[in-house]
Amino acid sequence: MRCRPMSLALSFLVASLLVPAVQLQADEGMWLFNQPPRKELKERYNFDATDAWLAHLRKSAVRFNNGGSGSFVSADGLVMTNHHIGQGTLNDLSTKDRDLLKNGYYARSQAEELKAPNLELNVLMSIEDVTGRVNAAVNSKDPAKAEQQRRAEMTKIEDESNKQTGLRSDVVTLYRGGLYQLYRYKKYTDVRLVFAPEDDIAAFGGDPDNFEYPRFDLDVCFFRVYENDKPVHVTDYLTWNPASLKEGDLVFVAGHPGRTERTLTVRHLEFMRDVQMPATLDHLRRQDVVALTFGGRSAENMRRAKSVLLRVQNSMKARLGGLAGLQDPAVMAVKRAEEETLRKAAAANPAMAAEFDAAMKTIDKSLVALDKVRVEYNLLEQAQAFRSTTFGIARTLVRAADEKAKPSADRFREFRDSNLDSLEQGLFSKAPIYADLETVALSDSLSMFMEQRGYNDPVVRTVMNGKSPSARAIELVRGTKLADVAVRRQLYEGGKKAIDASDDPMIVLARLVDKPSRDVRTIFEQQVDEPQRVGYGKLANIRFELFGKNTYPDATFTLRLAFGTVARCEEAGVPAPAWTTFGGLFERAKEHDNAKPFSLPKSWIDHKGDLDMDTPMNFVSTDDIIGGNSGSPIVNSNGELVGIIFDGDLTSLVWDYVYTKEGRAISVHGSAILEALRKVYDAAPLADELMRK
Amino acid sequence: MRCRPMSLALSFLVASLLVPAVQLQADEGMWLFNQPPRKELKERYNFDATDAWLAHLRKSAVRFNNGGSGSFVSADGLVMTNHHIGQGTLNDLSTKDRDLLKNGYYARSQAEELKAPNLELNVLMSIEDVTGRVNAAVNSKDPAKAEQQRRAEMTKIEDESNKQTGLRSDVVTLYRGGLYQLYRYKKYTDVRLVFAPEDDIAAFGGDPDNFEYPRFDLDVCFFRVYENDKPVHVTDYLTWNPASLKEGDLVFVAGHPGRTERTLTVRHLEFMRDVQMPATLDHLRRQDVVALTFGGRSAENMRRAKSVLLRVQNSMKARLGGLAGLQDPAVMAVKRAEEETLRKAAAANPAMAAEFDAAMKTIDKSLVALDKVRVEYNLLEQAQAFRSTTFGIARTLVRAADEKAKPSADRFREFRDSNLDSLEQGLFSKAPIYADLETVALSDSLSMFMEQRGYNDPVVRTVMNGKSPSARAIELVRGTKLADVAVRRQLYEGGKKAIDASDDPMIVLARLVDKPSRDVRTIFEQQVDEPQRVGYGKLANIRFELFGKNTYPDATFTLRLAFGTVARCEEAGVPAPAWTTFGGLFERAKEHDNAKPFSLPKSWIDHKGDLDMDTPMNFVSTDDIIGGNSGSPIVNSNGELVGIIFDGDLTSLVWDYVYTKEGRAISVHGSAILEALRKVYDAAPLADELMRK
Repeated sequence: MRCRPMSLALSFLVASLLVPAVQLQADEGMWLFNQPPRKELKERYNFDATDAWLAHLRKSAVRFNNGGSGSFVSADGLVMTNHHIGQGTLNDLSTKDRDLLKNGYYARSQAEELKAPNLELNVLMSIEDVTGRVNAAVNSKDPAKAEQQRRAEMTKIEDESNKQTGLRSDVVTLYRGGLYQLYRYKKYTDVRLVFAPEDDIAAFGGDPDNFEYPRFDLDVCFFRVYENDKPVHVTDYLTWNPASLKEGDLVFVAGHPGRTERTLTVRHLEFMRDVQMPATLDHLRRQDVVALTFGGRSAENMRRAKSVLLRVQNSMKARLGGLAGLQDPAVMAVKRAEEETLRKAAAANPAMAAEFDAAMKTIDKSLVALDKVRVEYNLLEQAQAFRSTTFGIARTLVRAADEKAKPSADRFREFRDSNLDSLEQGLFSKAPIYADLETVALSDSLSMFMEQRGYNDPVVRTVMNGKSPSARAIELVRGTKLADVAVRRQLYEGGKKAIDASDDPMIVLARLVDKPSRDVRTIFEQQVDEPQRVGYGKLANIRFELFGKNTYPDATFTLRLAFGTVARCEEAGVPAPAWTTFGGLFERAKEHDNAKPFSLPKSWIDHKGDLDMDTPMNFVSTDDIIGGNSGSPIVNSNGELVGIIFDGDLTSLVWDYVYTKEGRAISVHGSAILEALRKVYDAAPLADELMRK
Repeated sequence: MRCRPMSLALSFLVASLLVPAVQLQADEGMWLFNQPPRKELKERYNFDATDAWLAHLRKSAVRFNNGGSGSFVSADGLVMTNHHIGQGTLNDLSTKDRDLLKNGYYARSQAEELKAPNLELNVLMSIEDVTGRVNAAVNSKDPAKAEQQRRAEMTKIEDESNKQTGLRSDVVTLYRGGLYQLYRYKKYTDVRLVFAPEDDIAAFGGDPDNFEYPRFDLDVCFFRVYENDKPVHVTDYLTWNPASLKEGDLVFVAGHPGRTERTLTVRHLEFMRDVQMPATLDHLRRQDVVALTFGGRSAENMRRAKSVLLRVQNSMKARLGGLAGLQDPAVMAVKRAEEETLRKAAAANPAMAAEFDAAMKTIDKSLVALDKVRVEYNLLEQAQAFRSTTFGIARTLVRAADEKAKPSADRFREFRDSNLDSLEQGLFSKAPIYADLETVALSDSLSMFMEQRGYNDPVVRTVMNGKSPSARAIELVRGTKLADVAVRRQLYEGGKKAIDASDDPMIVLARLVDKPSRDVRTIFEQQVDEPQRVGYGKLANIRFELFGKNTYPDATFTLRLAFGTVARCEEAGVPAPAWTTFGGLFERAKEHDNAKPFSLPKSWIDHKGDLDMDTPMNFVSTDDIIGGNSGSPIVNSNGELVGIIFDGDLTSLVWDYVYTKEGRAISVHGSAILEALRKVYDAAPLADELMRK
């Protein structure tokens, strides 16, 4: 199925590009909650998105800061998300003798709910436009200075807001620089595991079925949010009504799409296609190979490597789909036509035409800078050369010592006062760190560092210290004490003095590479990031002027609203139904002789007779989603929950760049969750809690 | 275990490098049979390698032209090799319903012996030095012309010899250009499968245990060689005496090591470390990911992908070990010291010093040329851009049409008259071709082509024909008829006219890219290959003059003799015994809950009670081997078979560049083979045939 030629899916788009670039395709759009698609919904579906309806959905939606979405599903702080969003936590809470990924978990009482070592959940409370304030603070023509001014102002706004409201406050860059808005979140950090199924059913079909449809996954888990050691009481949560769902129903998704590249210039897309994506994929492949090799040595190794593997393989498959899109002449024809439409429209106004040209030049120049700096930036500042949890800790400690001594507005953004709580939560997480896995990953990444920068690069020589990559990795991992949370706390609290005095080899390494890493970050921020904000900001303003603001920005891992209908589809030319059933699940397991990754857990085999085989399991809709939407609630027009988003199909992988009406979002059907809780997992109390109004 | 720091293994070497570069380490050497290490054997082991002893071993040794070694082990043409050398054949002979890899095979009568679709076995009959004749033919100073002259002369020698003797005749380049010798082989192409165990026991431990020790693999299979539809009768074959083997015993390996890089210049090694190896590894990783993704979809897919996976994963692990060696400063220090020793010795003689400098410059220049041409050479001429069996067939057909029209001496070497039989055997092989696997591999490789040459490269654009890589791959694989052997034969016999008239899309593609591929091959042959022959030939002659000819050349996939002793070792600092036992095998399976790849086949579980648990299974020795030696017989000083080489340990992976006494060759113990045949496989007649004198 993975070989579907994208060209077929897109040919209609090329033909239709005689219309203006802003005319949206069918159910396209990841809309801002403060700029909702009222007109589209009214015209297409005769639906009124009232303020109350929107506010309830917004406050029921939850962001998982490890990269996913979720929702409140009971008054007692119960939160639902995908199993694959919870899997890092499940792994962190597992040991050699308690494998929560393999065996699942159900807390039959609140006392049994297990505290996640490192989860932060956010609920969006308000949005305020601060575009004027941010842009007013930037008065320098020098991009380096301008970058500092912008960064300082964003931090000031955030720190002030956080101090005033106590809420997490993030200035979000929308339209890649067209708007700046202040998002205020209620933040929860005491999050406890309530229920997770076995990963054999949560991720039935494994990597082979990832992004495929028809699908049969119970990709769901439940957490409960606590405050002051008690379940939090919420008034905005979603009530359930999955049973009524039928084909053609209007369904909404409220979630946090992570990143799209739909407004990039053609040259920027070509740069991604020819330079960035191939490099990213090479990096993912080597992580995959290292994790698989390590995991293959024993079942316990595989348990340890599982989180990495799931992340890497998911990312790899998604990006392969994205690259396939970029390499498809039909996709590029769409993007070229969009850009031409904008250029021609701007040409009617000389000032606007000049602004358009200036923007394009600025962006082009940023790409030249990016090409020069990207390898070093990835290796040093993104720490790809030092792939290990303990190096990440060491870097944070070393930098905290320097950054915290400065005024908040002058720091790296992640060290601003209003972000320190979140930073410390990660830094002091009790999640286990496996020395063996650290060693193989670090060894491979040091080898990659040597390959990419050359054996004789001065930083490489300093880092290697006369040793081979593997010998150096062993020395670093054996020598560091940073796996111990108390040691981290001591170093963090000891500040610069403690850091300077430390002879922990990982701290020493982080100190050694800090200067070159900071240097390359500065280049990146000043020559790539800031110019792109300026260039894309100009393009956004041209679009606003020409076509109005009735559009949506590229995804930014902030709350968005998507709409669409439950609709059957075609996958690689084969018709696929709008939903699958439990019956289909058992058939598919049988086709594969119940062999991994198509093996059912014992609980499902044992309870097969109790299940209604016609229960819908997964369903597809035309909602516009992307990575980060995982775990988003999908609701009907009454705002009632009908399921939970967990994937897109292969055809949707091109949605990074262009929405097509052939693509599909894939959800776990709410009925499957309820039926499984009651019949397979003997979890009626949990199902009852969900059904309570 | 895979993280052993090479530095430890090599530190002794660096210290010892005050001695001349040609002083060999312990049991180092892959010796020529016509230049055997008589002196070393006499001095170290008081062993006389008589002509008769050598001739018998040579004529008992067999080369598997798919990349391995083997030996005659009965008068009736029985040949033993590794299971992993036979596995391509086992895969070719398998179908969805008859999986010879999974289930193994035993032909209880000659009628049941299964003919391999594409095996060629060679037995070395004679060696003749032709250095004078080859070099005399080269009189041009222009490398392009010189390359043609040399190639033509080598072909002439081969064609003449083949015509005169009927033997396969190969001019082998030794010492990278120091000597040219004519190797004449008896060739066998009717090769039939007699016995193979299940791959669960042949490759017990799978990729995780590959290159590791202690090991527990029954990596062996048996073929029988036929002529005129009857088992061939041979007088030189190895008799068995494994039971007497003990630690410290002198043991010899007669096999076909494929390639070593021990005489490369330091700059050449640096080029491999910094440029070639990383690129090769990236390419292997992407083949691994594609095959694993395809294989993961079903058991049948995995069966189809298995050959690719085994090859790719083995190669990847070996090269990772090799790269680790090159990235180890201790290894480079050894190589630098060796080069300095040679430079200083040559400096005593001005003419020789000038020759040394000229050689180094020639080689350096060839590396500059290689760097320029390598990506295009790999993509086009090595066909990495078109990864599929049917493209390989198409290319052979297209080129045969052109080449066969020329005089033999003017053709590409593989099309010379004396090689056409072998070429045709491969071209008309009935081995199955799987369209689904072809499609995913071709799609990935076309995408790589686009990534590496750029979307707008004219050859890329021609190849893609306005389609995406996946759409183009589907079109090519669906459209081609070359999976049909009759179609190939028609096109081959139809010559240029048939090829020009063909509209088979794969033939059309091969025609399209033939010109640029030929062009880049010419550049490679004239600017890289020929100058390196000249440069390394000079260095070899300097070594001969200074230190005599009592040394061995880098491996060339021709017959070599290695010697060493059965000797325990250390693996990652842990002492390991000289051999493992059946008892250890069952323990290791139990440690892993009999889970793949540590699961025992049913036959072994059923017959556990019948087995002597003390039977030695695998053993290690200090013999100097490398890839290509797989399947080599290992014999005692009486020339009696004691086992079969199947692997080297992790420490030995650096042997590509430098032999270390810490590394070990790993063999299946002959006793394990006999015991398993009798007790597990009910194959007493086969065991009896082996024991017959």
